[in-house]
Amino acid sequence: MTDAEKPVELADLLDTNDLVGMRLWLAEHPPYEIADALARLPPERAIVPFRLLDKDRELEVFEELDPGQQQAILVGLRDSAFRELLEKMEPDDRARLIGEAPAKIAARALAGLSPAERRMTAALLGYPENSVGRFMTPDTVVLHRDLTVARALEVVRAKGAEAETVYVLPVVDHGRRLSGLVQLSDLVTSSPDTLLKDLVDVFTPRTYATDPAEDAARLMQEANLVALPVVDSEERFVGLLTFDDALELIEAADSEDIARQSGSQPVHGHYAAVGVLRLARARAAWLLLLIIASTLTVNVMQGFEATLEQVTALALFVPMLTGTGGNVGSQSATAVVRALAVGEVRLRDLHRVVWKEGRVGLLLGAMLAAIALVIGSLLVGTGIAAAVALSVVAICVWAAVIGSTMPLLARRVGVDPAVVSAPLVSTLVDATGLLIYFSVARAVLGV
Amino acid sequence: MTDAEKPVELADLLDTNDLVGMRLWLAEHPPYEIADALARLPPERAIVPFRLLDKDRELEVFEELDPGQQQAILVGLRDSAFRELLEKMEPDDRARLIGEAPAKIAARALAGLSPAERRMTAALLGYPENSVGRFMTPDTVVLHRDLTVARALEVVRAKGAEAETVYVLPVVDHGRRLSGLVQLSDLVTSSPDTLLKDLVDVFTPRTYATDPAEDAARLMQEANLVALPVVDSEERFVGLLTFDDALELIEAADSEDIARQSGSQPVHGHYAAVGVLRLARARAAWLLLLIIASTLTVNVMQGFEATLEQVTALALFVPMLTGTGGNVGSQSATAVVRALAVGEVRLRDLHRVVWKEGRVGLLLGAMLAAIALVIGSLLVGTGIAAAVALSVVAICVWAAVIGSTMPLLARRVGVDPAVVSAPLVSTLVDATGLLIYFSVARAVLGV
Repeated sequence: MTDAEKPVELADLLDTNDLVGMRLWLAEHPPYEIADALARLPPERAIVPFRLLDKDRELEVFEELDPGQQQAILVGLRDSAFRELLEKMEPDDRARLIGEAPAKIAARALAGLSPAERRMTAALLGYPENSVGRFMTPDTVVLHRDLTVARALEVVRAKGAEAETVYVLPVVDHGRRLSGLVQLSDLVTSSPDTLLKDLVDVFTPRTYATDPAEDAARLMQEANLVALPVVDSEERFVGLLTFDDALELIEAADSEDIARQSGSQPVHGHYAAVGVLRLARARAAWLLLLIIASTLTVNVMQGFEATLEQVTALALFVPMLTGTGGNVGSQSATAVVRALAVGEVRLRDLHRVVWKEGRVGLLLGAMLAAIALVIGSLLVGTGIAAAVALSVVAICVWAAVIGSTMPLLARRVGVDPAVVSAPLVSTLVDATGLLIYFSVARAVLGV
Repeated sequence: MTDAEKPVELADLLDTNDLVGMRLWLAEHPPYEIADALARLPPERAIVPFRLLDKDRELEVFEELDPGQQQAILVGLRDSAFRELLEKMEPDDRARLIGEAPAKIAARALAGLSPAERRMTAALLGYPENSVGRFMTPDTVVLHRDLTVARALEVVRAKGAEAETVYVLPVVDHGRRLSGLVQLSDLVTSSPDTLLKDLVDVFTPRTYATDPAEDAARLMQEANLVALPVVDSEERFVGLLTFDDALELIEAADSEDIARQSGSQPVHGHYAAVGVLRLARARAAWLLLLIIASTLTVNVMQGFEATLEQVTALALFVPMLTGTGGNVGSQSATAVVRALAVGEVRLRDLHRVVWKEGRVGLLLGAMLAAIALVIGSLLVGTGIAAAVALSVVAICVWAAVIGSTMPLLARRVGVDPAVVSAPLVSTLVDATGLLIYFSVARAVLGV
């Protein structure tokens, strides 16, 4: 690839302080690509290209950024620009930004808002973190169920241009209680004097504003909904959760689960913009805990030190056995954690899951034992090989049972099942697996 | 919870063959919950409640099922019901079902279709597996860019009722080349004689029908699109990828990545309905490969057997060291695989990523070495403890570098980076880590 063909990167233009180049680059790229480029920059530098954006594109780019990146941009803006940007944001995005910001920025942000916008934002901030209320869109067009289609279209025409979501419209009764949703396309294609109550889909699912946002997003995925109506405890309509929130929630939830599965705390923010220290901090807690837990393995090995001195060759297979146990346990744990996350397994399925995974472990153990027997016989002789093979079977069943039980137990005590990570299962299976191995070896070899 | 409060489950009603109870249950639940209950049943039994569904709800429930489950239902239907159901399916769902079905069922399915539907399905099946073309909706209302808003609304009214997606409408020029999208809400709220070409968003992203479907879904997430227009190689509009496809694609892609990250092949289908043999098969291949690879650890240990016989206590720390190396390597690999999947890291970032992860590994290694030094000194004395601590630092840096390099190298050679699983990294780091440990120990202890 010659230099001329290589795509110009915003970061390079920023490095050379090429203002003209940056302006051109910004004009040529769609908002989501600009946001992606800004997200890759260290937060304190992203403000430079952001200030070069056309006034009318500022908001679009800003709304594509994560709350953390938005914060970094905001603190770099003059007060008037700061207030203007916040005032124009969508209420749910604004609430999330303010909810995650330090108290000082949050106060400055709320103070700068017009009374109407402040009221809307304060209402959303009243909902618990990670609840549907924090992510929903409150300012949608609401239609009364006794309206005709013709009248409803007039309402949409009058108010629809400002409202965020007009693919689907909530239909309510006299007490603002939700009847259901009506699709804009149904309004357009239905005869003008049809009543809305005859168009509403009675099976439309709904969610409470205090429900977990991730569950609502998974429901939207399962039921193919472009928007999910949100109600309060008295079934009154309070907002819409829209498909873009669902997409974002599912991707974020999966990213968190994936991080937890590897024994990390989730790191929010773009990988390229997150520093070494923050990455290390997110990973340190579990590693510390696990290395301390692994002292157990040292203790078990010490308990069998006499056996080890007699038959040093037993030590040769320790990494193979702990590795295999960890692998089988991780597979089981990962499968069950994912099945829980997407709703395919529930708490009451515990005994069915463990029974299934135990049998999977037995099958895999039998297969791996055969291999271990061959490898062991070739390298050290049949006695030790037999001990290794028998241990492999026992360890695989045990690892599968532990790996599948722990996520369900975590869910039962209200902990995110995803903390039952591959490293955690491996570490737990290591110590118990060694106990199995040396006990079996002593019995088989008679030492 | 008393028995009366416990929710009745479809599976229990099926167990007792309670037809009346099943009919009632089906009438009381929305389609997506019925589909979920069917998905939990063994495929051959799901046909019983499915046959009890009202004719007009059959299709809705059917379309919520996975292709595999749909297949199992189809083979249990009489020929007329089979044909009727397929004819009414959306073309993209049908194409996916037929594409994944055994040749015999696929042929029977295609033969039963009306010529128009058969043509549409055959066109979608012409696109490569997992490409956008397989997932897009081809029968949307298409508008010409020279139309006025009033005329466009007439077209929507005339054709919109049958077409699947009418939140957004593709706008094309004379050669059916895509100009962009227009929102239905914009049509409703704009003045009737506005021309479509003045309403079209010029920054609307587009995708080619042969592009990978997952990439298109991630783009929709990033750009908050309710639908993404799909074009052929000559920029002619051929279909729309809709938000529900994007949600499904992202959830499926994440499920696959998560399975691969634990060293499993992805298993399609509901966890509750997948048998022990299929689960074991999905996990066996990697386990086999990894246990064979772990023979390397036996070889390394054998190479240092003389050292081990001299200082048996060195063996005590083998599980702790291999465990820690595996944990650090898995964290790095998982972080990089996820960053690649969501587009935060690209191939050309290789050196930046490795440099970052190497420093993270150094920080974590230094911290863990301090702990290992304390544990080792307490349990066996300072000489071996020093060897263990030094090894921890080296192994952590090495594990982080290996864990972050491998996913990028996999992407470079065109392999899914997610195959660089925690078990794979652990196994690779095990053997090399032992080599480091024993070399360091020999140097420190002078044996």
